[in-house]
Amino acid sequence: MKPVKIGLLGLGTVGGGTVSVLTRNAEEIARRAGRGIIISHAAAKDYNRGLKGLDQIARITDDAYGVVNDPEVEIVVELIGGYKPALDLVMTAIANGKHVVTANKALIATHGNEIFAAAQKQGVTVAFEAAVAGGIPIIKALREGLAANQIEWAAGIINGTSNFILTEMKDKGRDFDDVLKEAQARGYAEADPTFDIEGVDAAHKLTILASIAFGIPLQFDKVYKEGITAIERQDVSYAAELGYNIKLLGITRKTANGIELRVHPTLIPEHRLIANVDGVMNAVLVKGDAVGPTLYYGAGAGAEPTASAVIADIIDVVRALTTDPGNRVPHLAFQPKSMSNIAILPMDEVQTGYYLRVHAVDKPGVLSDVTTILGDLGISIEAIIQKQPDEDATLVPVILLTQKVTEKNMNEAIRKIEALDSVSGKVRRIRVETLA
Amino acid sequence: MKPVKIGLLGLGTVGGGTVSVLTRNAEEIARRAGRGIIISHAAAKDYNRGLKGLDQIARITDDAYGVVNDPEVEIVVELIGGYKPALDLVMTAIANGKHVVTANKALIATHGNEIFAAAQKQGVTVAFEAAVAGGIPIIKALREGLAANQIEWAAGIINGTSNFILTEMKDKGRDFDDVLKEAQARGYAEADPTFDIEGVDAAHKLTILASIAFGIPLQFDKVYKEGITAIERQDVSYAAELGYNIKLLGITRKTANGIELRVHPTLIPEHRLIANVDGVMNAVLVKGDAVGPTLYYGAGAGAEPTASAVIADIIDVVRALTTDPGNRVPHLAFQPKSMSNIAILPMDEVQTGYYLRVHAVDKPGVLSDVTTILGDLGISIEAIIQKQPDEDATLVPVILLTQKVTEKNMNEAIRKIEALDSVSGKVRRIRVETLA
Repeated sequence: MKPVKIGLLGLGTVGGGTVSVLTRNAEEIARRAGRGIIISHAAAKDYNRGLKGLDQIARITDDAYGVVNDPEVEIVVELIGGYKPALDLVMTAIANGKHVVTANKALIATHGNEIFAAAQKQGVTVAFEAAVAGGIPIIKALREGLAANQIEWAAGIINGTSNFILTEMKDKGRDFDDVLKEAQARGYAEADPTFDIEGVDAAHKLTILASIAFGIPLQFDKVYKEGITAIERQDVSYAAELGYNIKLLGITRKTANGIELRVHPTLIPEHRLIANVDGVMNAVLVKGDAVGPTLYYGAGAGAEPTASAVIADIIDVVRALTTDPGNRVPHLAFQPKSMSNIAILPMDEVQTGYYLRVHAVDKPGVLSDVTTILGDLGISIEAIIQKQPDEDATLVPVILLTQKVTEKNMNEAIRKIEALDSVSGKVRRIRVETLA
Repeated sequence: MKPVKIGLLGLGTVGGGTVSVLTRNAEEIARRAGRGIIISHAAAKDYNRGLKGLDQIARITDDAYGVVNDPEVEIVVELIGGYKPALDLVMTAIANGKHVVTANKALIATHGNEIFAAAQKQGVTVAFEAAVAGGIPIIKALREGLAANQIEWAAGIINGTSNFILTEMKDKGRDFDDVLKEAQARGYAEADPTFDIEGVDAAHKLTILASIAFGIPLQFDKVYKEGITAIERQDVSYAAELGYNIKLLGITRKTANGIELRVHPTLIPEHRLIANVDGVMNAVLVKGDAVGPTLYYGAGAGAEPTASAVIADIIDVVRALTTDPGNRVPHLAFQPKSMSNIAILPMDEVQTGYYLRVHAVDKPGVLSDVTTILGDLGISIEAIIQKQPDEDATLVPVILLTQKVTEKNMNEAIRKIEALDSVSGKVRRIRVETLA
């Protein structure tokens, strides 16, 4: 069979990785796919950035529309990122009857519903394995490998930058700002790290995971987002004392009242496998009713890990070229007409455990004040640590772990605790998940 | 579309789980697959064992051939296990043009080559996700999710019984025999546990993993097999002292001289994620050249986890019913005409690190005797621990960790060490892998 012709949009980090892997492993890939896959066209803003040798096999241009409109191109691979011009290019490719592979999590999380509707109408596929957790084939696992299950919940370390920072804070007792600077120097964090450390990037990926887990439309705007910027070194060390590691998790869970959709720092029991996923690595833990807990671990970013996912998608699309569209794996795991409209649970209604750090003026009675407030609101305490005051300080950190309670009740409790005369400043709150 | 009709062979543990999950999650599954999947026929030796309610929907018989020969049945699901009559039933189903789903690792590992050749000829699919690591979608991950990669190696905890025993030995300092009895009582181990504890079951699964990783024919007879029966409590605790956990691993690796294919107890650095996979859980670590290390974790056995994999396969087959056979994912990941004939590396040529336990007659000079032997054979020592002799004993256990060396050289060294006057009895040897 003739090789399949790919039109590549973007020759940055992931684009370059895709060219490298497709070239290096061309034979291995053809042995699996049953036919060759070649980049026949590539578009990059500055086409001198085209990789060495690529101009020997591909027509390189700075006009991305020239690629998506070229009748020769069978599959468009969008690796530009962002919304503009990525969205319009993808929609144009679909309108032209071309299949699309993309690594663009922001695009899928915010415009996926319209993109998939258009693709469905045109009978083409839009594949996006690389959009979540880089090289880990989590989309495939969740959408196909666990297709027999009712998914109960999924929880993932899906932002490598945040995980690197939290790992360094724990292993070396370093401060957040200090590690962030190093992460930026090492290229793990962007010059503007907001998307990573404020949970936006994780929320994009969680949005996609939740849709394919539960068959609900993509609803990025409904995700509760809390990043790691407020995590202090002492929280990491108190958590460790209590037997927990702090990780930035994206969590989605189906409850009787709606679907949870939240990104926030989370205490996880240190003996859980996912609590030991360190550095820039990613992992997603998925609980299905039949299979039980399963975990998927690997590199969540980087040129070649992401290229691994992009090319796996290309191979899948190549195999589906002759398939009746109705028999393909649906974009969001469930058939479009079988999507569910279960509501997203407001954060106020979510139930979790809590880690609280309270700064008490060191006088008798403060513990009883705090525990009375919690008790009156029906909040059970699982552990308390009262630390020694700092040498020059009169404030004593009191650390509490609570059992599960609704966020609303906890907000109320925190308001009351902060109002106590015996308590100074804000209560630091981090959510706790056992992931059992 | 009309529901797909399944003919189920075997109503034991996995058969029962498959009926339960298909029934309980019928709606969820149809929402994903786009059509219903129903068990229209079921065969079991004693059909009174048929599950409650199954006789309402399926024709239950004790004649398995009646099922595989029934023109109504579209997909045959073989959950009988073993070779006879499973092999003939599968071959008959294929000859009848039916697709097959099986959880039978022994059958695939030993007869897969002929089964897949027949299926290829008939244009039907034989799916076997449940044959390796139960509910973990590792076949799909390796065959499709990592299809862009040259696989460098894979290493798996793929026998839950052995892992349960080793975990108990480590966590509770118990003896092998003691834990084995408990495992049998709890149903984690068979009355005749040979297949599990001697590495045969793991070798079946490793055979399959190696084929789809490297595109080589199934070669179960070439697997080096060593079980866990010789592991003693003190080895587990000495390993821990050195920073290692002992796991029964199936390892396959592509080297310049051939493909390693081996099952044996292995010391793994305790900070590796896979070293912390405990109890009956399974995990497979796969290293691809583009993606780097990835890990897949979950339940490796049990009624519903295995059913999860069986049903995922059924859904895949349902989707492929209308696909041109040439565009389906090949049985062993690579197109049949693109299989490789790289030889399996004889165990003598394999290179690993070693843990050695030597019982020295407590006299000066023994350490120098041993290290001289190792040094003369070019074997570097990474660590030595000399223990205190037991109260009533004059023998001192000496524990050595070596760097990588070929098995042949190590065998030679062990022969020489055992011949020393200053050494008593056999040298206990366990291989070491860093899995980096």
